[in-house]
Amino acid sequence: MRIAFIGLGVMGYPMAGHLQKAGHQVCVYNRTPQKAVSWCEMYGGESANTPAGAASNAEIVFVCVGNDDDLRSVVFGHEGILAGMSSNTVLIDHTTVSAQVSEEIAEVAAKQHVSFMDAPVSGGQQGAEKGLLTVMVGGEATVFARTESVISCYARAVRHMGPVGAGQKTKMVNQICIAGLVQGLAEGLHFAKASSLDPEAVVGVISKGAAQSWQMDNRHKTMLAGDYNHGFAVDWMRKDLSIVLDEARKNGAHLPVTALVDQFYAAVQQIGGNRWDTSSLLALLEARSLVKTD
Amino acid sequence: MRIAFIGLGVMGYPMAGHLQKAGHQVCVYNRTPQKAVSWCEMYGGESANTPAGAASNAEIVFVCVGNDDDLRSVVFGHEGILAGMSSNTVLIDHTTVSAQVSEEIAEVAAKQHVSFMDAPVSGGQQGAEKGLLTVMVGGEATVFARTESVISCYARAVRHMGPVGAGQKTKMVNQICIAGLVQGLAEGLHFAKASSLDPEAVVGVISKGAAQSWQMDNRHKTMLAGDYNHGFAVDWMRKDLSIVLDEARKNGAHLPVTALVDQFYAAVQQIGGNRWDTSSLLALLEARSLVKTD
Repeated sequence: MRIAFIGLGVMGYPMAGHLQKAGHQVCVYNRTPQKAVSWCEMYGGESANTPAGAASNAEIVFVCVGNDDDLRSVVFGHEGILAGMSSNTVLIDHTTVSAQVSEEIAEVAAKQHVSFMDAPVSGGQQGAEKGLLTVMVGGEATVFARTESVISCYARAVRHMGPVGAGQKTKMVNQICIAGLVQGLAEGLHFAKASSLDPEAVVGVISKGAAQSWQMDNRHKTMLAGDYNHGFAVDWMRKDLSIVLDEARKNGAHLPVTALVDQFYAAVQQIGGNRWDTSSLLALLEARSLVKTD
Repeated sequence: MRIAFIGLGVMGYPMAGHLQKAGHQVCVYNRTPQKAVSWCEMYGGESANTPAGAASNAEIVFVCVGNDDDLRSVVFGHEGILAGMSSNTVLIDHTTVSAQVSEEIAEVAAKQHVSFMDAPVSGGQQGAEKGLLTVMVGGEATVFARTESVISCYARAVRHMGPVGAGQKTKMVNQICIAGLVQGLAEGLHFAKASSLDPEAVVGVISKGAAQSWQMDNRHKTMLAGDYNHGFAVDWMRKDLSIVLDEARKNGAHLPVTALVDQFYAAVQQIGGNRWDTSSLLALLEARSLVKTD
């Protein structure tokens, strides 16, 4: 299939690579051209000088950029994606953005007979590289049915969650659950250390029961080591929580701990932890990092 | 082995039963005598009229009562456990109490050459009935070594966590982790419903990744059904969080979300949820129960 992939960041770069390796004809575009050049050298596809150029010959256009503004600009802008797309094609967005911008794009795209699906992912950089992402899709069921196998080139699970916006809202639920959970885990480990317990031994016991979580299983070692230079960055988590809290103003959901943890992440940013993993909430409780960064 | 078991509540009743079934000679005591009578009918052991009477012939005395005050009274009181125990025996407490009362009892017991271990459990009523509890033990390693196999009669894991009090502190870490985690899960499910997503489908996707937890796997169905008449009661969780927050005042740990969730549980109590499961934090977010109980 003829595919365009717009945005070769840490996620998009390997995702586009999986598509090319699966036998699709991929044409990429990236704001910084050098990345597109090195992508073509690595995978053997083509690149274009504008989003419109990449999209002009594609049956499916994928986009994976930074935030709402980046997405609007690359989709709606001069020489943007929609300027290049033919009718009866599909635009799939992998960026985590607001449900509102997804609905906006879907509406404009529909006018030129382009189908839109929002499809945020989870699984991180490693998931993208290994082709094992989880993809949460919002859009028409028929469009989902005819694109699912293509998305599967880099996913272990592709799920249709409902109409346009439902993918984004599902991703928001994911981030809400993680926010409270990681803070609880951080407080638990902090208390264990303050109590002079052996935190590894404590996790060894409590991870067998009702306190167990993926975060406990996969993050406690790095948290106890004070190692946060990996994983999902606090800056990205704050972007996602901003989207979550805006959406909650609209749907009326009451998210007291999510809002509080968002503020804790603001404090992590203030002590220089912008690129630290979300599990760095423990560093904040320990105020150890305050000393380190002085 | 000659064993006394003091306190035949929902936990102690089946735990004492497992000891008797394993071939030990168990003598029980319960404040309400009728329960001791029915226990003897069911399991064939003996009962005594006072804690001292039950303890007088025992090599190991187990106790499992309600809270710090109950424990002090049954251990130190007139005709209490320590009044009956011989020297060179072991007293093991399964109640979730403060580390301070554990240390108090250990000190007094030592004077009459009785070894003490704190040994709070997790796994709930079901774990007690099936003999699959997790037991977190604080005390001397040599005492642990010679009692571990007896405790194993009702446990799938018995772990030595450190000196007297370390069992209680480990249990506290467990409750801290659960508090933040369940609130995060409740906010996530609340948001999913407010967004008109299919919450079951959402859990189906996000439970495969970084938001996964035991609580998500085992409680989301009952939470979505508004069914809270099971599990670990809010009254007990508040008791445990009170112990946690007192201990944190001593060790200096900073537990902002744990303290906040404790207040949310106070609100659950106010709407009549004293006996509801800890997952009833969702009911509070939905304010549905406020209407129900009017």
